[in-house]
Amino acid sequence: MAHKYVYLFKEGNAEMRNLLGGKGANLAEMSRIGLPVPYGFTISTEACTRYYEDGKTIAPEIVEQIDAHLAMIEEQNGKKLGDVNDPLLVSVRSGARASMPGMMDTILNLGLNDESVKGLAAKTGNERFAYDSYRRFIQMFSDVVMEVEKSKFEAILDAVKEENGAKFDTDLTADNLKEVVKRYKELYLKEMGEEFPQDPKVQLMAAIKAVFRSWDNPRAIVYRRLNDIPGDWGTAVNVQSMVFGNTGNRSGTGVAFTRDPATGEKKLFGEYLINAQGEDVVAGIRTPQPIAKLQEDMPEVYDQFVETAQILEKHYRDMQDMEYTIQDGKLFMLQTRNGKRTAAAALKIACDLVDEGMRTKEEAVCMIDPKSLDSLLHPTFDPKALKAAKAVATGLAASPGAACGRVYFTAEDAVAASERGEKTVLVRLETSPEDIEGMHCSEGILTARGGMTSHAAVVARGMGTCCVAGCGDVRVDEENHVCTIAGTTVKEGDWISLDGSTGNVYIGAIETKPAEVSGNFKRIMDWADELRVLQVRTNADTPTDAAKALEFGAQGVGLTRTEHMFFDPDRIPAMREMIVSKTEEERRKALAKLLPMQKEDFKGIYKVMAGRPVTIRFLDPPLHEFLPTAEEDIVALAADMGLEVDELKATIASLHEFNPMMGHRGCRLAVTYPEIAEMQTRAVIEAAIEVKEETGFDILPEIMIPLVGEIKELKYVKDVVVATAEKVMEEKGDKIDYMVGTMIEIPRAALTADEIAKEAEFFSFGTNDLTQMTFGFSRDDAGKFLNEYYTKKIYESDPFARVDQIGVGKLMKMAVELGRQTRPGMKMGICGEHGGDPSSVEFCHKIGLNYVSCSPFRVPIARLAAAQAAVNFPREK
Amino acid sequence: MAHKYVYLFKEGNAEMRNLLGGKGANLAEMSRIGLPVPYGFTISTEACTRYYEDGKTIAPEIVEQIDAHLAMIEEQNGKKLGDVNDPLLVSVRSGARASMPGMMDTILNLGLNDESVKGLAAKTGNERFAYDSYRRFIQMFSDVVMEVEKSKFEAILDAVKEENGAKFDTDLTADNLKEVVKRYKELYLKEMGEEFPQDPKVQLMAAIKAVFRSWDNPRAIVYRRLNDIPGDWGTAVNVQSMVFGNTGNRSGTGVAFTRDPATGEKKLFGEYLINAQGEDVVAGIRTPQPIAKLQEDMPEVYDQFVETAQILEKHYRDMQDMEYTIQDGKLFMLQTRNGKRTAAAALKIACDLVDEGMRTKEEAVCMIDPKSLDSLLHPTFDPKALKAAKAVATGLAASPGAACGRVYFTAEDAVAASERGEKTVLVRLETSPEDIEGMHCSEGILTARGGMTSHAAVVARGMGTCCVAGCGDVRVDEENHVCTIAGTTVKEGDWISLDGSTGNVYIGAIETKPAEVSGNFKRIMDWADELRVLQVRTNADTPTDAAKALEFGAQGVGLTRTEHMFFDPDRIPAMREMIVSKTEEERRKALAKLLPMQKEDFKGIYKVMAGRPVTIRFLDPPLHEFLPTAEEDIVALAADMGLEVDELKATIASLHEFNPMMGHRGCRLAVTYPEIAEMQTRAVIEAAIEVKEETGFDILPEIMIPLVGEIKELKYVKDVVVATAEKVMEEKGDKIDYMVGTMIEIPRAALTADEIAKEAEFFSFGTNDLTQMTFGFSRDDAGKFLNEYYTKKIYESDPFARVDQIGVGKLMKMAVELGRQTRPGMKMGICGEHGGDPSSVEFCHKIGLNYVSCSPFRVPIARLAAAQAAVNFPREK
Repeated sequence: MAHKYVYLFKEGNAEMRNLLGGKGANLAEMSRIGLPVPYGFTISTEACTRYYEDGKTIAPEIVEQIDAHLAMIEEQNGKKLGDVNDPLLVSVRSGARASMPGMMDTILNLGLNDESVKGLAAKTGNERFAYDSYRRFIQMFSDVVMEVEKSKFEAILDAVKEENGAKFDTDLTADNLKEVVKRYKELYLKEMGEEFPQDPKVQLMAAIKAVFRSWDNPRAIVYRRLNDIPGDWGTAVNVQSMVFGNTGNRSGTGVAFTRDPATGEKKLFGEYLINAQGEDVVAGIRTPQPIAKLQEDMPEVYDQFVETAQILEKHYRDMQDMEYTIQDGKLFMLQTRNGKRTAAAALKIACDLVDEGMRTKEEAVCMIDPKSLDSLLHPTFDPKALKAAKAVATGLAASPGAACGRVYFTAEDAVAASERGEKTVLVRLETSPEDIEGMHCSEGILTARGGMTSHAAVVARGMGTCCVAGCGDVRVDEENHVCTIAGTTVKEGDWISLDGSTGNVYIGAIETKPAEVSGNFKRIMDWADELRVLQVRTNADTPTDAAKALEFGAQGVGLTRTEHMFFDPDRIPAMREMIVSKTEEERRKALAKLLPMQKEDFKGIYKVMAGRPVTIRFLDPPLHEFLPTAEEDIVALAADMGLEVDELKATIASLHEFNPMMGHRGCRLAVTYPEIAEMQTRAVIEAAIEVKEETGFDILPEIMIPLVGEIKELKYVKDVVVATAEKVMEEKGDKIDYMVGTMIEIPRAALTADEIAKEAEFFSFGTNDLTQMTFGFSRDDAGKFLNEYYTKKIYESDPFARVDQIGVGKLMKMAVELGRQTRPGMKMGICGEHGGDPSSVEFCHKIGLNYVSCSPFRVPIARLAAAQAAVNFPREK
Repeated sequence: MAHKYVYLFKEGNAEMRNLLGGKGANLAEMSRIGLPVPYGFTISTEACTRYYEDGKTIAPEIVEQIDAHLAMIEEQNGKKLGDVNDPLLVSVRSGARASMPGMMDTILNLGLNDESVKGLAAKTGNERFAYDSYRRFIQMFSDVVMEVEKSKFEAILDAVKEENGAKFDTDLTADNLKEVVKRYKELYLKEMGEEFPQDPKVQLMAAIKAVFRSWDNPRAIVYRRLNDIPGDWGTAVNVQSMVFGNTGNRSGTGVAFTRDPATGEKKLFGEYLINAQGEDVVAGIRTPQPIAKLQEDMPEVYDQFVETAQILEKHYRDMQDMEYTIQDGKLFMLQTRNGKRTAAAALKIACDLVDEGMRTKEEAVCMIDPKSLDSLLHPTFDPKALKAAKAVATGLAASPGAACGRVYFTAEDAVAASERGEKTVLVRLETSPEDIEGMHCSEGILTARGGMTSHAAVVARGMGTCCVAGCGDVRVDEENHVCTIAGTTVKEGDWISLDGSTGNVYIGAIETKPAEVSGNFKRIMDWADELRVLQVRTNADTPTDAAKALEFGAQGVGLTRTEHMFFDPDRIPAMREMIVSKTEEERRKALAKLLPMQKEDFKGIYKVMAGRPVTIRFLDPPLHEFLPTAEEDIVALAADMGLEVDELKATIASLHEFNPMMGHRGCRLAVTYPEIAEMQTRAVIEAAIEVKEETGFDILPEIMIPLVGEIKELKYVKDVVVATAEKVMEEKGDKIDYMVGTMIEIPRAALTADEIAKEAEFFSFGTNDLTQMTFGFSRDDAGKFLNEYYTKKIYESDPFARVDQIGVGKLMKMAVELGRQTRPGMKMGICGEHGGDPSSVEFCHKIGLNYVSCSPFRVPIARLAAAQAAVNFPREK
């Protein structure tokens, strides 16, 4: 028997979403439970996949099945498509497994042609209705299927309205509409070089193909990438008998939600338009009225709808978003689906459904999109204040939240102002590591240059600070402490406001309100914590970050990058002195200056974390990153260090690397300069012992050696660490526990994890570098070609945002298995940026990691994602 | 029972080389077959490993075993160590599994002290002999065990000789020698701060430790790395009863070979020194005499030695290198081993042993070190002419062979001179891709800057052209066409000579003689070809290279790098035009100019290869490599292209990459600019059809897509290739077979090889890049830390020279298995530089590759290595 590609609504149910798409499955389900749904059938997502496999053609066997199912709904309705006396009309709508904007719009009234329109007029006794339906069909078909510009049709409609003094579409008479139809068909002929198709079967097949085609339009591809939807899912097509909301004043159409999608409040919420077809509501041509109006107009229909809505919410056990049409006083349901909602509403609805006994905690936790939490964790503008403001420029929405403060153009100035108690916004051409402190103290950061992975964007996201990056309308004159924003001059100390969630820039101050992480948010998070198996730690380089993360529920620090501390203007001179040292002795002298600073950093973090585990990664970046590049800075450094400028330049030149990513960095630094690892070990252990003495907390530092690719490399550095730690403990007359582990971020480390685990006491997957090495492209350079890769459907998602489970994930799995072969129960985590990405968190759960670590603002996201993973893929704690 | 660490000679045999070391195993074997060997025992290599595991101490249980075995040889000899009347003396010698220069020298006469020396004098009635032995022992012990400088002892000896008018050591009297001993002991006290040790057991343990320690001295580490000897083998220690060649004129010592190690001629060849101890022969203090002198002095001992030599050669079935001592007319054998020999001798001996019925062809093939063949493939200086010449400077021996020609300072001048029929040597500060043609036409290349992996060195090795690189004594003034070499001015057109095997530079012409690849060389190669399973192809970018490789036995081209062709000055303008094009149309116009050139390149190679397979890799390097960097070149290019200089600079800047190795290159270029792949496909297929028409050869091009990491990426490019190929064949009205495959050089490609194999028709392992990505360091940058890694014993061999079988090899094995799961019997090869490295060839054989591909001059090496692999690890053809 041939494979089944087409299903009558009555053959399906809500479970068949993968095959029938969301819309098709729900239409089937509503039919199944006896709600009034017009007859129809669904062409499955498999048919879409097959369409692409067959070189964008619909196979004859599928055409046959469509014909056969069309015959069945003709039978059910007692009407035939194209019948000149009493034609069956159908709608054609796309419906993928997940809701996808960018997909094909609906086509209504398909089946009309020059003859059947007359039959429809005669049969309904409503000529105006018949021609209104026909002109709508021509416009939709031309726009959606044939890609003739919509505006050209609207121009005709406007012209006819004007010619006839009609204000609204509804003011047009049957004759006016005949004129519209005539002109529409002329336009079609002119644009397409052929007559508007009269054969309803041709119309139908063209519409079906258009749906399939729309699966692959550029907007859909981008949407899928941003929302982790695989390209091979395909879309289904729903073909449904028409019902008409435009037959007169006992007809209408509308949409409704069972609860308020903005707040989650439990009350029917919706809109309604009398004597109209579906797209009129959505398109905003006429202003719809609140659903209460339906109660006035047709109370019995309203009551029936309220009951239906309740049935549906109970049935789906979730807030429903419904489309309906009333034809001559009779209610028809055209769609239901779980309604989209704001993050705040999602939390309230999930909690309410638990309280109402409709959902378990497990289910409630799974109802929230973890990524949506982000919007709740940052300050927002006061809505009233915002309404009065107008954005003057828009940059990249690089780090979410709202900010408002006085403008400063250098990190030093921002720090000074902030110390005076001012709220500041740092405005820079672009930021560099030297700006860290100024970024830290500011409410927001605005840069003229740089993309979503620029320094400003990455660091701001890490800090949870609002950032608008790469705003081309900003011209910065740092020297004169002034900038222009879209032509307006803004001086140091002037107020501006930034919206990091939209990229908008405002001149002047807009009041902000702080984030709130209590109430429903807290209830959901508490449930998530009960359920999850994965621990959630944070990446934090400062006590401030660590404290923020703790507030968001972090259970430890998974990554402290010790190098970030050295970019501080107070410290970088000693760091530079260390780098340009010519002998071990000189190097040790410079390191001795860094030791107390580094120790204080660690003490600060230990104190905040109060006995929770803290993982400290040893120096990672290539040393040249710390050296100046500008001539004047080089001259100044040479003077400071008592060196000849040329001598210093030669040192800087000797540190140049062709591929810094694959150069002298990570543990390679500790191998060549073991004294660096000694200093860092001393700082880690002395700090731990001192904090233990001062606070009584047991501090368990986890020393993490980066960029290991070979067991002997790790052993060499570990030997230095252990020898130093033993010495320090002897000096201090105290013993503490500590661990020495490694990052798994080099493919060879994953491949030889059984060996590495002989020395490493824990693994932390550094998936940023691991992704770079496994794919063989650097994040900094891949921007130049990745867009082309998305467009050409070679990659569907950004491997730096979401773990590539096929390649990188295979290495991770291998490393987990090999590592635990050697060291059963070995502690393993992830500290790459993927640690805060929900799909990656799920993957980490599945392969058996113990924890994920992410930036403070992603901690709640990771907690929720971990709970969802635990519910969906149970695994022992 | 305790683990056995110590073996009497009579407990061992030749098979126990891994445990007893080469020397120990052969001493045991000689004892076993009844040859006269002084009693002794061997402390195993396991004891050495244990010594390092135990933190450089000898475990008590091993000390016990040593004591017990010492007691046994005391019993055998009827003498005791340290006996004041008749002391047993012993020698202590290192002996690793493989012969290793840099290891500890021999210590003789151990057991002597102030008392036992008197006993020895009394017992032998030879006071002079006793004190001679003692002074030798003090010097050897101090030098070798305690690291007191040898020269200080020699100064004392010279002083005493001068004071007493002695010319030779043998002229010194017993009293003179007592004086030497006295002063030696004073020196020891001064240097070491303690008396020379008198306890023979203390002497013995110190000597044994010194042997273990010497396993890890820097010279030994370097030697192991260069010779692929693992660091964990360890060395054995041989403790043997002394026999004395210095008791008078019926005594002596010597070394001998059973065949001439320089030519392989079958005749006893050796040296002999009367009344001397072993080190006198080696140290060259007295000039030894030919072994024929022994026949005169002691004919019956000579006859016994000849017979012994014959027994040993028959027994070991190989040319032997022996050490012997005659004590009072009695012959003792102290060592035998397979003798080192020149490459030419190795070939002759192997062939002769087959002819003499002593060895099979399989064994003969395995007797030759494949790497040694290199020296036979290049021109050499005429030995007589060389004797008269003096090197004025020495650089890096970057590419072997001898060269002699007139100096030119630019590639253009060298090409012009070469076209006039001159022999040229190209002298440059350093070379760049623009110099290729000038390098090609020259006999040799000399650069002032750059290391073993500099452009000059890498390209010259590929071409098989002699190259001396990084010669610091050369100052080049390119502008004035003149240089100085170690102070001497050399002008354009002057003659110089280079030895690429030693790095020597000579002023003036030294006659060279061409390489010879016939005779024994050909016999061995023919046998190798019969035996091997792996095919051997070559990496060749030009017809000249291809022809050279064919002469050396290549069976096809495994890699043609299409980009090298575009660095030619005639072509680079069109390439640059293509790169700076702003539209696809402009790009296609520039590509159209490149097409005929590229096609001619391919036709040339196809014709040379005469129907053998040719693998063509599509454009690989990042485009910025083709653009000029010097201001003047940029200005010139802008003028050529009709661009503003700033515009061109902006384009160049936009192509800048942070990590070019991981940037926009390989198939990523073909994804963004498919028209490049179209042009290259057209050139490949048109050339194949035209050559087929012109010559009748069936050409099977293998199109190879580089840097693939994802199946869809390969599919995208393959679709372009196939569509273009079909179009070209239709245009030409002819069909040819061709394959589309991929490099496996990105870890992700190896990890997903089952997927990749759905599209790839063959795999070629690009182990250069695969090594870089798997280790996470770039070859260009790793130089800065790799030396430290070798010194610290983290890496034992250069992963770019020898495939890292543990990490990279694991990926390769995985890719082979996964690929053939999808495509059984899939053709797989290697085209990284490892393809010409014997140990890597063996690995490729073991994992089941079909071919290796290497530079032309490595083809014979690969053929031989492949045969050895096939003999040692049989596998079906």
